[in-house]
Amino acid sequence: MSLLIVGTMAFDALETPFGKVDRIIGGSGTYAALAASNFTKPINMVSIVGGDFPKEDIAALESRGVSFDGLEIVADEKSFFWSGKYHLDMNTRDTLVTDLNVLARFNPIVPESYQGADFMMLGNLSPAVQISALKQLHKRPKLVIMDTMNFWMDVAMPELQEALQMVDLLMVNDSEARQLSGEYSLVKAAKKIQKMGPKYLIIKKGEHGALLFYEDRIFSAPALPLEDVFDPTGAGDTFAGGFIGYLDRINDISFESMKAAIIMGSALASFCVEKFGPQRLMEITPEEIEARVNEFIMLSNFEVRAK
Amino acid sequence: MSLLIVGTMAFDALETPFGKVDRIIGGSGTYAALAASNFTKPINMVSIVGGDFPKEDIAALESRGVSFDGLEIVADEKSFFWSGKYHLDMNTRDTLVTDLNVLARFNPIVPESYQGADFMMLGNLSPAVQISALKQLHKRPKLVIMDTMNFWMDVAMPELQEALQMVDLLMVNDSEARQLSGEYSLVKAAKKIQKMGPKYLIIKKGEHGALLFYEDRIFSAPALPLEDVFDPTGAGDTFAGGFIGYLDRINDISFESMKAAIIMGSALASFCVEKFGPQRLMEITPEEIEARVNEFIMLSNFEVRAK
Repeated sequence: MSLLIVGTMAFDALETPFGKVDRIIGGSGTYAALAASNFTKPINMVSIVGGDFPKEDIAALESRGVSFDGLEIVADEKSFFWSGKYHLDMNTRDTLVTDLNVLARFNPIVPESYQGADFMMLGNLSPAVQISALKQLHKRPKLVIMDTMNFWMDVAMPELQEALQMVDLLMVNDSEARQLSGEYSLVKAAKKIQKMGPKYLIIKKGEHGALLFYEDRIFSAPALPLEDVFDPTGAGDTFAGGFIGYLDRINDISFESMKAAIIMGSALASFCVEKFGPQRLMEITPEEIEARVNEFIMLSNFEVRAK
Repeated sequence: MSLLIVGTMAFDALETPFGKVDRIIGGSGTYAALAASNFTKPINMVSIVGGDFPKEDIAALESRGVSFDGLEIVADEKSFFWSGKYHLDMNTRDTLVTDLNVLARFNPIVPESYQGADFMMLGNLSPAVQISALKQLHKRPKLVIMDTMNFWMDVAMPELQEALQMVDLLMVNDSEARQLSGEYSLVKAAKKIQKMGPKYLIIKKGEHGALLFYEDRIFSAPALPLEDVFDPTGAGDTFAGGFIGYLDRINDISFESMKAAIIMGSALASFCVEKFGPQRLMEITPEEIEARVNEFIMLSNFEVRAK
């Protein structure tokens, strides 16, 4: 199979109640690729970085099966930089700095070698960039998933609506689903969003898990209850990467497979938050993933006895 | 088997975004007994009402297997009255009126006919009242569960701590668990609370489901995603009543049985919120409960395929 990811590669500066890091690699593309690399390769990346992005990090991703034919390196400019500080509850954060740098001129080019992708993930980018990447494909992938955020609903709603009509699955958090639909009830929100284009909708609820909507079916995935969330940065992109990487691996998009894929994404996200940035994702073994997935099964499995 | 419930029987006046009712029967005992009556009988109630509590409602509960040998009726006084108004999100509410009336002098008497109970539920009452009821039992029940609220943490913490040491299972919502433990992480909160006495802890998270903690095991139960929550009053007590009623029915307190009991409680709570007050609980059929439980299975069941 083949997986195409369009996303950011960036530097993050992070502060949580547990400490701070000044400059660590991040970005939706980085986290998604790292997560997906546990299940499939190649992972064809379309992204943009400045000359400051570390060659050794690119090499480390390449060694995990990530292809960078679609990576634009602007030698004399800087990579996208984001800095944020998390509140004590770890569910809310303040953005301190957003330096778009090279991202401001990102015009994604899908190289010929990436054509024919079966699965595509459009990370959180401007809807115009997402649409541009999608329009370059000669053949429609089996499944196109996209992420977005409230910022694009505020400043680019018409383009966002156009993008929504082109994708199969939208992945947003609960507050974004409410803003996009104007509905408080997530069931009502899902119905409205499904009418905007995407047949599938995943609503991420952080520590409360995630909901998958398809036609009139709903799947509720738990999140692993954790003692400490060390750094939530990248957890959503890790979830998305694990989700689509697993689907690419098993090459199936039935509702049952999507349920399992959500558990895989949740398992990887539960690792991601254990250390700063993508550090923990670089270390996980297949055995650790299997054990974590078993924890999810223990956590949510039940049997109702005949009364 | 036999089930003993100590709880309030009251009048509620409710206002939600969907309408209002001026005077409808309620109280933790009422909701819990109605829920439990789907699984077991007799349900031995210890409560107090004024002369104004409708005879026909008592008769309706009796016809469902509720025994009122332990009901004190104070003919010339009024029943406990609570009035509240829900906000648009249905998760928060303002208490408009709390008239304790007969509840102010509630001194629960467990009649001889109730002795030997296997299962006991202590609804949200002052810890002193909960302790008094528990101390009257000649034989320790198989399982004693209790509910409480932040108010008792504020005004009666020493008595609450004493009560916690006497029960097997505490059932609180997430904000109560955080207040009681002083921990934000629910996993840390659970560990601290389990050290206060109860071996089992259920943390109710409203529309996000519930968590059961026992030793180092956790079960995460989903809530049924609903288009509309018409009136959330009594949902927590309904959950508790369904939970303990089911356990009494199957007469087993293994972790596996508790998981199933949580699903039963969640299913009944999902009915409760469909209409004002206990109205919907009065109507449900066994077939409806079975169908609702199947919805929970569909909602949370998944299978991970070998990769």
